[in-house]
Amino acid sequence: MRIAVLGGDGFVGWPTTLHLSARGHDIHIVDNLSRRWIDAELGVQSLTPMDSIQERIRIWKEQTGRQLGFQLIDIASEYERFKIWLAEFRPEAIVHFAEQRAAPYSMKTDRHKGYTVNNNVNATHNVLNAITALKLDAHLVHLGTMGVYGYDTMGAAIPEGYLKVGVLDAEGQPAEKEILYPANPGSIYHMTKCLDQLLFQFYAKNDKLRITDLHQGIVWGTNTEETKRHPQLVNRFDYDGDYGTVLNRFLVQAAINYPLTVHGQGGQTRAFIHIQDSVRCIEIALNNPPTAGGRVQIFNQMTESHRVRDLAAIVAGMVGGEVVHLPNPRNEAEENDLVVRNEQFLRLGLEPTTLEAGLLAEIVDVARRFAHRIDRARIPCVSGWTAERSLLLDRDPERRRLRVVGA
Amino acid sequence: MRIAVLGGDGFVGWPTTLHLSARGHDIHIVDNLSRRWIDAELGVQSLTPMDSIQERIRIWKEQTGRQLGFQLIDIASEYERFKIWLAEFRPEAIVHFAEQRAAPYSMKTDRHKGYTVNNNVNATHNVLNAITALKLDAHLVHLGTMGVYGYDTMGAAIPEGYLKVGVLDAEGQPAEKEILYPANPGSIYHMTKCLDQLLFQFYAKNDKLRITDLHQGIVWGTNTEETKRHPQLVNRFDYDGDYGTVLNRFLVQAAINYPLTVHGQGGQTRAFIHIQDSVRCIEIALNNPPTAGGRVQIFNQMTESHRVRDLAAIVAGMVGGEVVHLPNPRNEAEENDLVVRNEQFLRLGLEPTTLEAGLLAEIVDVARRFAHRIDRARIPCVSGWTAERSLLLDRDPERRRLRVVGA
Ligand SMILES: NC(=O)c1ccc[n+]([C@@H]2O[C@H](COP(=O)([O-])OP(=O)(O)OC[C@H]3O[C@@H](n4cnc5c(N)ncnc54)[C@H](O)[C@@H]3O)[C@@H](O)[C@H]2O)c1
Ligand SMILES: NC(=O)c1ccc[n+]([C@@H]2O[C@H](COP(=O)([O-])OP(=O)(O)OC[C@H]3O[C@@H](n4cnc5c(N)ncnc54)[C@H](O)[C@@H]3O)[C@@H](O)[C@H]2O)c1
Repeated sequence: MRIAVLGGDGFVGWPTTLHLSARGHDIHIVDNLSRRWIDAELGVQSLTPMDSIQERIRIWKEQTGRQLGFQLIDIASEYERFKIWLAEFRPEAIVHFAEQRAAPYSMKTDRHKGYTVNNNVNATHNVLNAITALKLDAHLVHLGTMGVYGYDTMGAAIPEGYLKVGVLDAEGQPAEKEILYPANPGSIYHMTKCLDQLLFQFYAKNDKLRITDLHQGIVWGTNTEETKRHPQLVNRFDYDGDYGTVLNRFLVQAAINYPLTVHGQGGQTRAFIHIQDSVRCIEIALNNPPTAGGRVQIFNQMTESHRVRDLAAIVAGMVGGEVVHLPNPRNEAEENDLVVRNEQFLRLGLEPTTLEAGLLAEIVDVARRFAHRIDRARIPCVSGWTAERSLLLDRDPERRRLRVVGA
Repeated sequence: MRIAVLGGDGFVGWPTTLHLSARGHDIHIVDNLSRRWIDAELGVQSLTPMDSIQERIRIWKEQTGRQLGFQLIDIASEYERFKIWLAEFRPEAIVHFAEQRAAPYSMKTDRHKGYTVNNNVNATHNVLNAITALKLDAHLVHLGTMGVYGYDTMGAAIPEGYLKVGVLDAEGQPAEKEILYPANPGSIYHMTKCLDQLLFQFYAKNDKLRITDLHQGIVWGTNTEETKRHPQLVNRFDYDGDYGTVLNRFLVQAAINYPLTVHGQGGQTRAFIHIQDSVRCIEIALNNPPTAGGRVQIFNQMTESHRVRDLAAIVAGMVGGEVVHLPNPRNEAEENDLVVRNEQFLRLGLEPTTLEAGLLAEIVDVARRFAHRIDRARIPCVSGWTAERSLLLDRDPERRRLRVVGA
């Protein structure tokens, strides 16, 4: 298949590109490299030493003989350039990762909020708009998030995108309807994914676009079969307070004898998926497009749920390390349960890679190998969801101590 | 009250400004005058000869002694300028009209789709973002649309923003929840108002902003008590295929012996409100802010519902004129019912101005007075919702005949 991977230089996009290329697909990456620019802005870097996209592509060609395309296009602000390129390449499928994806970054300041909304909404809308304008018969696979459901949920297990509800019909009689699960985002970032959902709903209805939206859990791990083939194919690994995600951060912290930082009581339950499964799910989704004229196809892309403090305990038990509780920068419930349905991917053949000592140890190894690249001062979260929470963070004694540890 | 009126140069914004100024409020208009630029783009003009905003303000001062402020700011693309101005003016309330508001314009081409999404989402988000960043305790009143509900509704009468649904709780027991009415927009324009709703929901929750969202029906009429005070205070009146709305268009068509153009069978039922009631509703909303920390307050701002073909019959019966059926440019159900709840405004004292011969005749008079300014060629709708519908429009014999009539 001819596949465009938008955001193919990123944490999930790069291993997806290699996975699909290894399976013989013709892959072109479109990326504006904004994520690398944000590294520069924040003064942080991937734990793993990551080469330029051009160099990565050269090594992949050397290793496998397979060519990857790369276009430097900002799909949010360069609609015309994107459309011209799309008209030439005419992909049969488009995988869309190209959004600002960190909740803490999206909450830093008003500049970051505005950037995230503008970038993500325009990126997604431009893709839909260009497909429609070009009458391109391409299947769009989008990476969404479990966070669109919110964690203060409607009650029962979270279904895959659509919720059955009882309403009264025109005659006042009880009737059952299936609706898009009511959006309840917890950050500006998550909110943009809820906006995306409405964009998809509209274009699937009005223009009969074929769209799959993957509501992904938190990705953990770093390497896949393909990124392991050569040191210069290594995937990026974010450990900082803005881009690092919870399990990967605990593993890095444990690896360097830094306290495991739990937000609040750690009663938050979250959904997880290993990076290797993430790329497999995307392949499965590409092989199973919805039919045109139907509704958006939504899969929950996760394999297991865990409570944050339990994860900290597992990692501490395995590697050692002190667990500390910091004020929660987020506006969220102290405790929540989370039961998520994911039968669709299981039915289509996904064999879940679940939390397992071997895999966790592998990540600790990666972290230890590159421990000299870690800036300990960048580990604590710095972005409060509100002015009050930022103040609480600033004043917390435990966190002050960490800043000393970090320095 | 110190009130900022964003989009105060527009069709609803201008009479609202005068209505509030007449009641002693201190009003500052913020507008980028984009609507005047779109007039230039489309080569159409308001049926009524509309002066520059500066001249309108001068006349109002001359007539009433009251000063209006005016800032030329694009709130979608000039966040920093807007924020600086807001920090100086520190309004107690903000009325937000500043969006691209025509569904047909939003569906013209990919450029118009992209413009509408970018303009409307960023405009609304920038307002919320700036209020939050400045810790401004201002009540935000936004003009939304009845179109967020869609016309293929959940069944019973449309509630005011929130729908009670039955779900299963965590124990599998039936429970009742109240959710934001599931969005079902019929155009890119309407979709942006659904996106706005999620932005409001988030900022009301995370930052405790006080927000009222008015789901307005189609506005008809042109003058209010204040715009009648002087010919140069006249309100704008759009009759063209993109910006003209259905009832006002029928009245103009009848006034100049142009066929009354019904889309499809005219089985669409729509909600309406007279411009005089619209400005009164906004005043009522300003006087009844929600409390901080609660959810977004949503009112249905409409006074009656009518089927399009019935409106055509009423106007034809009153003024005369042939009714023609053209292919529907929109992707929508041929027929729909519409029962809308609007008890909140009634309870707060709104006395509805309903469809009535005297008022309709007044509009026909306005149209006849300025008939020489009408470009008949601009009356038919030109923007099809999909490529197929545009083709149908182009090929329709009735419409070809109209183009000759129009020429
Ligand atoms: N990493 C996770 O745990 C996780 C979990 C759930 C969902 N997701 C989603 O998966 C997708 C990929 O996540 P990731 O972790 O790989 O993020 P990432 O930031 O590493 O990658 C995103 C890539 O998109 C590019 N990009 C951003 N805006 C762009 C634009 N306007 N034009 C062109 N390129 C642009 C960036 O430069 C970057 O290379 C995101 O949409 C994210 O929301 C990720
Ligand atoms: N007219 C109707 O029948 C109707 C019905 C329902 C809802 N509404 C809503 O009411 C509001 C006002 O409608 P209207 O008929 O007065 O529209 P309008 O186009 O006449 O007025 C909108 C005004 O906002 C300004 N504007 C647009 N984008 C801006 C930006 N980025 N920065 C600054 N100013 C900007 C325009 O220049 C214009 O003066 C709109 O939000 C519309 O969606 C109107």
